[in-house]
Amino acid sequence: MSQDFSFTVHATDGTARKGEIFTPRGTIRTPAFMPVGTAATVKAMFPQDVRATGADILLGNVYHLMLRPGAERIARLGGLHDFMRWPFPILTDSGGFQVMSLAKLRKLDESGVTFQSHIDGSKHHLSPERSMEIQHLLGSDIQMQFDECVRLPCSDDEAERAMRLSLRWAERSRKAFRQQPGRAVFGIVQGGASKPLRIESAKALAGMDFHGLAVGGLAVGEPQEVMLDMLETTLPHLPASKPRYLMGVGTPDDIVQAVARGVDMFDCVMPTRAGRHGLAYTPFGKVNLKNARYAEDLSPLDADSTCPAARDYSRAYLHHLVKAGEILGMMLLTQANLAYYQSLMAGLRAAIGDGRLTDFIAETRAQWAAGEAASRPQ
Amino acid sequence: MSQDFSFTVHATDGTARKGEIFTPRGTIRTPAFMPVGTAATVKAMFPQDVRATGADILLGNVYHLMLRPGAERIARLGGLHDFMRWPFPILTDSGGFQVMSLAKLRKLDESGVTFQSHIDGSKHHLSPERSMEIQHLLGSDIQMQFDECVRLPCSDDEAERAMRLSLRWAERSRKAFRQQPGRAVFGIVQGGASKPLRIESAKALAGMDFHGLAVGGLAVGEPQEVMLDMLETTLPHLPASKPRYLMGVGTPDDIVQAVARGVDMFDCVMPTRAGRHGLAYTPFGKVNLKNARYAEDLSPLDADSTCPAARDYSRAYLHHLVKAGEILGMMLLTQANLAYYQSLMAGLRAAIGDGRLTDFIAETRAQWAAGEAASRPQ
Repeated sequence: MSQDFSFTVHATDGTARKGEIFTPRGTIRTPAFMPVGTAATVKAMFPQDVRATGADILLGNVYHLMLRPGAERIARLGGLHDFMRWPFPILTDSGGFQVMSLAKLRKLDESGVTFQSHIDGSKHHLSPERSMEIQHLLGSDIQMQFDECVRLPCSDDEAERAMRLSLRWAERSRKAFRQQPGRAVFGIVQGGASKPLRIESAKALAGMDFHGLAVGGLAVGEPQEVMLDMLETTLPHLPASKPRYLMGVGTPDDIVQAVARGVDMFDCVMPTRAGRHGLAYTPFGKVNLKNARYAEDLSPLDADSTCPAARDYSRAYLHHLVKAGEILGMMLLTQANLAYYQSLMAGLRAAIGDGRLTDFIAETRAQWAAGEAASRPQ
Repeated sequence: MSQDFSFTVHATDGTARKGEIFTPRGTIRTPAFMPVGTAATVKAMFPQDVRATGADILLGNVYHLMLRPGAERIARLGGLHDFMRWPFPILTDSGGFQVMSLAKLRKLDESGVTFQSHIDGSKHHLSPERSMEIQHLLGSDIQMQFDECVRLPCSDDEAERAMRLSLRWAERSRKAFRQQPGRAVFGIVQGGASKPLRIESAKALAGMDFHGLAVGGLAVGEPQEVMLDMLETTLPHLPASKPRYLMGVGTPDDIVQAVARGVDMFDCVMPTRAGRHGLAYTPFGKVNLKNARYAEDLSPLDADSTCPAARDYSRAYLHHLVKAGEILGMMLLTQANLAYYQSLMAGLRAAIGDGRLTDFIAETRAQWAAGEAASRPQ
């Protein structure tokens, strides 16, 4: 068996692709959704239950893990996989995004970013070289270049400056990754909401020796149309032979639309965060379990689900748990949401394989729109 | 198969008893520990995982459930067992204790207690008749009389007044229970820290037609010696043919000592509450996972446990989860603690059956005292 990281496209349907990423720790079926395991745990989930929802890979965060418990400590403890009891593939975010969104007193220059921890105010420095070193210490299977992500809307000048800095950091990140058999490093397209900048970034990164390419700096406040426009502009300039990862996206509809345009990988806190706040994603759209209409509703979230949380517990019970602030409510809704996201990905993969993605998307969106009435026997 | 509630003592060792309580929903091996499922959930636990720790029965609270989601609502939804997906026996506390410890603006008279909800300030009334009605609506397998529980220390006059009121409420509770095939109602001995009062209460209750007898009003602030002294005084006056339940107790050592004195049933929030606050109960004593000494400790809580939470996760990971306030830390420690409590009960039952309870207790206490050094291979 080859121990090399590889990507194979098995089927296409329009611009959408169905494939497999091989890593020594396991095969990732694409299009893939990666649950977010920020601080070495997918919040409120046992690792075996994350696996049971259908996840082939999850995401860890350099920013959170470097601050607590620390990358060197995790390395001494045998690496992130053993530490959190997840023996399957892990992709790590390089920390650039969280430094911008969470850290205090940031100071950015060509070398990298100096910042204060949001936890205890301690001072830290991240550079392309240090981010890659941390990802190596964690033992990450797919490592991301260190980049600068700007919030939208921003001026084209600002987007251009950050994009060019990210390209220089891409070269340094790629060099710092060196050769790690079985592991991969991905570059990240930036360029704000500017088509010329996105194209320039994509072309430059396509010319570097990355194992995959990500699109960053989207789903950061812009309308869905802008995001899809940027994808349509960017993806044709990325090599078809490499996996394409849309970072931090998104709602089920964002994912469906992006898959249709050729994206292979996604991550988002939405299913897990929503689950901790009483919101369920289902084939019948979103269900807000705080709503009093569910107080005596004996139906489950989704009677046809293979997920126990979605199939076996009444909405009345989930409503009670959410109203009472019970941890079990968060556990069940997180599990149900991750299971729904994974079943959506499975549906997308099957539809691409069968050449009926357009129909699948239309049916899926119609079911969301029909709402929960569609979930009840008539 | 008989559908009657029944209790059989299979073995004795000194004053300790090993037995089985039969209910139509399942058999309860005694001495038994009942995890507390306050608000229709054992906090941070899936019901199947509560079962997997070895629990035969769990405890629900009239006070919490009457306020949210409401007893009539639970009845309309099919009863507490279906609501919370726990098809095994449930014992319900009558609400007397929580009215005293949680509710606001209590007004107590012969009829019962009027109080304000700690959740929303709404006004409610509990009486022996209403408490029994609620327990019937919930579908509880073992129902408790409504009583008044005083905090220790208190004057003998106060203890006597509350004890006599509780006896009158015992008669009213027993009458209100009527006949419920397969279900039981227990009386509750009160009397503060006064031996004559405890004996009078026990004798009076022994003469009523209860299926079991509880000892209440202990572990409410008094030293362990006082509690054990009251048990030694009270238990000989309770009929040997009926199960004896020590309410709200306790630490592993409290339980071991009370079993030796003839107690058959226990409940306590300690293992679940401690688990949510970073504290683990193990065969090697208590382990405070907040302690920095565990930051790089790769050993599990208990390598010989059958509980995955205690056996498979490193103390270093548990330390990290606790420090980071992660829900998974609460989930794992709650599970490990309940599993330890249940393994302790299993050990006590086996020791009574083998006639070696004294040795078992000495070995168990020695292992607690030796601490975690005893948990490591030399």
